[in-house]
Amino acid sequence: MTPNYSDLGFTNILTSLDGPVLVVLMNRSKQRNTWSGALSRELQKVFDLADRDDRVRVVVFTSEHTAPAFCAGADISGGWDILWDPEEEKEGPHAHRDTGGKTSLVIYRCRKITIAAVNGHAAGVGMTALQLPFDLRFVWAGAKLTFPFVRRGIVPEGMFYNYMLPRLLGHSRANSLLLTGATFTPESPVIQGLYHQILPTREEVFPAALAFAKELAATTSQVSIAVTKGLLQHPGNSVEENHILDSRGIRELAETDGAEGIRSFREKREPKFTGTLSKDLGSWFPWWKQVDTKHHKSKL
Amino acid sequence: MTPNYSDLGFTNILTSLDGPVLVVLMNRSKQRNTWSGALSRELQKVFDLADRDDRVRVVVFTSEHTAPAFCAGADISGGWDILWDPEEEKEGPHAHRDTGGKTSLVIYRCRKITIAAVNGHAAGVGMTALQLPFDLRFVWAGAKLTFPFVRRGIVPEGMFYNYMLPRLLGHSRANSLLLTGATFTPESPVIQGLYHQILPTREEVFPAALAFAKELAATTSQVSIAVTKGLLQHPGNSVEENHILDSRGIRELAETDGAEGIRSFREKREPKFTGTLSKDLGSWFPWWKQVDTKHHKSKL
Amino acid sequence: MTPNYSDLGFTNILTSLDGPVLVVLMNRSKQRNTWSGALSRELQKVFDLADRDDRVRVVVFTSEHTAPAFCAGADISGGWDILWDPEEEKEGPHAHRDTGGKTSLVIYRCRKITIAAVNGHAAGVGMTALQLPFDLRFVWAGAKLTFPFVRRGIVPEGMFYNYMLPRLLGHSRANSLLLTGATFTPESPVIQGLYHQILPTREEVFPAALAFAKELAATTSQVSIAVTKGLLQHPGNSVEENHILDSRGIRELAETDGAEGIRSFREKREPKFTGTLSKDLGSWFPWWKQVDTKHHKSKL
Repeated sequence: MTPNYSDLGFTNILTSLDGPVLVVLMNRSKQRNTWSGALSRELQKVFDLADRDDRVRVVVFTSEHTAPAFCAGADISGGWDILWDPEEEKEGPHAHRDTGGKTSLVIYRCRKITIAAVNGHAAGVGMTALQLPFDLRFVWAGAKLTFPFVRRGIVPEGMFYNYMLPRLLGHSRANSLLLTGATFTPESPVIQGLYHQILPTREEVFPAALAFAKELAATTSQVSIAVTKGLLQHPGNSVEENHILDSRGIRELAETDGAEGIRSFREKREPKFTGTLSKDLGSWFPWWKQVDTKHHKSKL
Repeated sequence: MTPNYSDLGFTNILTSLDGPVLVVLMNRSKQRNTWSGALSRELQKVFDLADRDDRVRVVVFTSEHTAPAFCAGADISGGWDILWDPEEEKEGPHAHRDTGGKTSLVIYRCRKITIAAVNGHAAGVGMTALQLPFDLRFVWAGAKLTFPFVRRGIVPEGMFYNYMLPRLLGHSRANSLLLTGATFTPESPVIQGLYHQILPTREEVFPAALAFAKELAATTSQVSIAVTKGLLQHPGNSVEENHILDSRGIRELAETDGAEGIRSFREKREPKFTGTLSKDLGSWFPWWKQVDTKHHKSKL
Repeated sequence: MTPNYSDLGFTNILTSLDGPVLVVLMNRSKQRNTWSGALSRELQKVFDLADRDDRVRVVVFTSEHTAPAFCAGADISGGWDILWDPEEEKEGPHAHRDTGGKTSLVIYRCRKITIAAVNGHAAGVGMTALQLPFDLRFVWAGAKLTFPFVRRGIVPEGMFYNYMLPRLLGHSRANSLLLTGATFTPESPVIQGLYHQILPTREEVFPAALAFAKELAATTSQVSIAVTKGLLQHPGNSVEENHILDSRGIRELAETDGAEGIRSFREKREPKFTGTLSKDLGSWFPWWKQVDTKHHKSKL
């Protein structure tokens, strides 16, 4: 599968393939990079493609560093209605599936390395779907960051972040972030742990993320990354189950990219991994059962 | 339900309602603010009232900043016996329910924002029941903080903190705190993440906590807080289950305080949330089954 | 059970009992302290003995501070084959049990306090099995630390660290460490939380760890430590279950080392705990069912 990323008919994002790195750029600066249903659908499509396209090893998402914000949240000037799906509405409130959550799920499930380059202020869904499901986050030191949900009369964005944020940072910091709706900057001890790297200026954020993306694309194994992400997201229920799971992982990978890992080590050179998800993931992957979130006219 | 907090017959704590903020003050300075069975019962009662009283949006707990300690732990000069319940003793050791744990559970289940203002040294139950079940903690930079249980021949206070502390700070720091019994100050990297704010003097801690409590009471939705706390404490078993859960939350709340969130946003003014737990939590809340901890003469 | 630690026939490690502290020293400086199957078997044996020997209260593991590294990872110059067990190989990849994981499991299950004194660079299994299952880690500030697995075409060492590291530090930092294979020093915000103490020079690391080990051995209760570790590793599924579990713990221990805790408190002296695991752990311990990881010719 080799989609042409410059010709996918997107209007809310711009995408380009830079060798093994797919760059996704928010294209809504004039709308302060606010969230919309169309943006959500384009993001879901591109991260699904990146997951399946063997050429892609790393995806970097960013906005224009000259825009008013990295993402100013959902545009709710028209009311919450823009968030509802007419089909789901007919079923009732239990059938609603938030667009932020739908998008987060696709990004979270992408088996490639995903990096968010947060080069401006971020609020609401700009903190949740556009940051938390990514593997790594780079950020501008001056960014104002806020989860304002409890100050808007709703709950954290319908995006599984009541679940994700405690896992990322622990419950103590998650409480400070989610229950206060206060604004923080990246160097605050409350939120600092969320970021892989903090850069002094807006314009440095994307280049730093892209350079790291290229290094990772050149040095890591696509298969190792997919299996390691699987192990991080779908661990067993005990240390023992995990010992069994990742022993299996190491044994299986030793035959594919692991063999090149050994050869390059012996030959004292950088490895050149050729394993791909379409041909080198054994039948044991995935070992988990993926939960279907579609509403099927039966209550959970 | 509108209890008169100045007339509840308490002797171990003093309580007063300051607008939407309930202040609970330890009244045992002469006993070095040590823990007792009577204190435990009064705390359980007041946090249960705060949970059900629609007027209360935030609860702040503190001690006198001139007292010898915020809480010096349980008063064990009379032996452990003060901690046992004669009825439970008849049943055997499996029937014991620790007073610290009982109190923690009530504070943890309170659906309002809870803040501990730790304006002095804290040991044992002063670290566990009087800090960890709270949503946010403010602390004096000079406070000596210790979990001394393993140096007293017992286990962390029978208060579910072997469970809570790893969730709040991660297992690495929890090991350092619980397995050593060593004393730390709040700026130590081992414990810093526990605190929302660290203040330089004892006298500044409570005013800072109270000012923040008032800000949160004025700006947050009572219903949003209750549902967000529910989501944080009772997540589903996967990202997918949580996507379904908080999509439901956002859809339900859009009809109550969420509507005011939109109106105030459009009218460029601060929101004025009027939703209350007694009238605006739908029948879907709570979505979890509360575990009963009473001993029923059948072993767990 | 009183083994003579100076006469166990080990060649890859040197062991000595210093009062209640067992010191385990890596004896492979000439091999850059790399991992081997024989090292793994000796470590499993000594940590199993330490678990059962009532004289041992704390175990400290370290390397020579003049060695090229604390542990340079597995020696893979001979290929991955050195890691496979011929018996398991006959069964197929699902039967493999990684030596790092086997060793980690024994260290993790040891009911005494375990401390790793990381006085040099560490890579791969030197980060995982030789650090993460320990309760506390001391480290040299200049140590280069790396989890290189994804840059070797495999997954994190077949050692349950996809499970352990997120629990120790949260998923945000675990992603940064495991998905990039980058090199960090201990004061990096990404990894700092892993360490109980960071020392400026290599030669200070072991003495600091040993002094702390002796303090803990002198002041903590062996029974309290074992039950607290049990509670940390095998919590219930809710705060309520944990309230029941640790109430049981406190009630049981009050009769053994807890009684000395009270006596020493009243007599204003240091406690002298005499409780031991072989005679003072009640029949309620362990309350969990230990998972067997051996392959039994039936697929998980």
